[in-house]
Amino acid sequence: MTLLALLLLAAPVVAEPPKAPAEIAAGAPASDWVVIPPEDLLIIDLAPDAHGRPRRVVIQLMPKPFSQGWIANIRALAAAHWWDGTSINRVQDNYVVQWGDPNSEDKAKAKPLPTGLKKVPQKAYVARVAPTSRVRIALSPYAQTEGFFQGWPIATHGRTAWPVHCYGMVGVGRDMPPDTGSGAELYTVIGQAPRQLDRNIALVGRVIDGIENMSALPRGTEPLSFYKTAEERTPIVRTRLASDLPESERPRFETLSTESASFDAFADARANRRDAFFIAPAGGADVCNIPVPIRPTPR
Amino acid sequence: MTLLALLLLAAPVVAEPPKAPAEIAAGAPASDWVVIPPEDLLIIDLAPDAHGRPRRVVIQLMPKPFSQGWIANIRALAAAHWWDGTSINRVQDNYVVQWGDPNSEDKAKAKPLPTGLKKVPQKAYVARVAPTSRVRIALSPYAQTEGFFQGWPIATHGRTAWPVHCYGMVGVGRDMPPDTGSGAELYTVIGQAPRQLDRNIALVGRVIDGIENMSALPRGTEPLSFYKTAEERTPIVRTRLASDLPESERPRFETLSTESASFDAFADARANRRDAFFIAPAGGADVCNIPVPIRPTPR
Repeated sequence: MTLLALLLLAAPVVAEPPKAPAEIAAGAPASDWVVIPPEDLLIIDLAPDAHGRPRRVVIQLMPKPFSQGWIANIRALAAAHWWDGTSINRVQDNYVVQWGDPNSEDKAKAKPLPTGLKKVPQKAYVARVAPTSRVRIALSPYAQTEGFFQGWPIATHGRTAWPVHCYGMVGVGRDMPPDTGSGAELYTVIGQAPRQLDRNIALVGRVIDGIENMSALPRGTEPLSFYKTAEERTPIVRTRLASDLPESERPRFETLSTESASFDAFADARANRRDAFFIAPAGGADVCNIPVPIRPTPR
Repeated sequence: MTLLALLLLAAPVVAEPPKAPAEIAAGAPASDWVVIPPEDLLIIDLAPDAHGRPRRVVIQLMPKPFSQGWIANIRALAAAHWWDGTSINRVQDNYVVQWGDPNSEDKAKAKPLPTGLKKVPQKAYVARVAPTSRVRIALSPYAQTEGFFQGWPIATHGRTAWPVHCYGMVGVGRDMPPDTGSGAELYTVIGQAPRQLDRNIALVGRVIDGIENMSALPRGTEPLSFYKTAEERTPIVRTRLASDLPESERPRFETLSTESASFDAFADARANRRDAFFIAPAGGADVCNIPVPIRPTPR
């Protein structure tokens, strides 16, 4: 036996305390983080609040092959500055915040949409992909399995997969026929995952920064929690893709790779909290209770 | 064949359009609604908002045998007017709103608790009961089954059951040792059900009215989303049990019996939306996505 081995054997054994999920994410190597491309970042600047503070909401758009028809429309709407001057029109507690043209239902007053937007068929609510992450949830009332596809929560049935209505996910409002959502009318989830909407509305992204600028707004008092008066609506000053901004003005964010060992450990810790305070690990987690870690890219 | 049978056969068959869950609840007979006793209603009056509008939050306390030690403490704290002059101290997006004494961690400044509060042991986090409702969720990552006990969402393992951290549920803040929560420090859930807290903190009730007076408050900016300054805290003016108020001042609420056929139909509709707009019924629902209908008692 060499001296080195002896020294190693003699080293005191210090049991590390179990880490909380956020600590696992913070400790992941830089190589486990994936930078979000600027063409996938949609930046919404709301009117400043009553104290003059700026309010920004940043949305990450979904990757191929999910919802690409609607996402092409959203990029075109942002390029046309179509949302500038629109507003947040509906805030329903434990459900959704919705924004766009407050007069969209009134043909005489509705803001014209840019030309060239596509009509996307109902079949685009699902895609033929398999999860890319090793993390799987086998027990779900909503699907055969749940898991993650390139950073996004999905549910699967056979060879079909669809994105999931977790907190902060962004979807496309529509009328009764399922192909009537253009992408101009958007909403985000601010409560318990309304999984009944999965496969019934297109999901196109998620809020990754500033969701409190939507979720903490006063609730509307009209049917479906729309606001009653124009004064209650929060104005949208500007909506742009990061790729349409000068490079110096682009926010930069990154997601923890759902294909990394760090994410495996993170998901395991979400399902089995062993850090101080916890006395009874749950032994599992639903897909919306494993929020993919996202952070501003360190400079 | 009798004339009566002939007439019945000849009656025109009108297929009723499938009902939305809210329509099913609204159509339930009066006998399917259970009035909440006034000793189970905890009324929190917050300071009026910036426009002078009153802000009230009403909490329903859980029935026996769940969490009765903490609930006895809460009734004693309300009777002692202990919360009057305390405040909402923490608002964390997609997690919890917490209220009580803002100085509870500072022994020199902490508000003294009334005498006679009980120390409740860890074993009271669970109870030995079976679901009373026929509605069952067999596929859950968190438990063998989920269901309802006298109007409340529960999860079960063998003969053990525990209440579930759904949106709006109210729990007892504690320090590291599991028997350190008195009931003076309370929180409510304002996001995706944090099921990792089940069996780790005592649940004692749920917000049944006015949750937007908590969930739409500005988020805190300190660690764990506590507020930084005293000015940010929303003052609690008064907290009372309805049974401690004159009868004319008591609010009255009722819950749809989870043991009724109406609730069976409601839960089925939550899991299988067939009303207009829906094209792909989910085929299931998690226990927190079947919120028990609650309404002011019609006069």
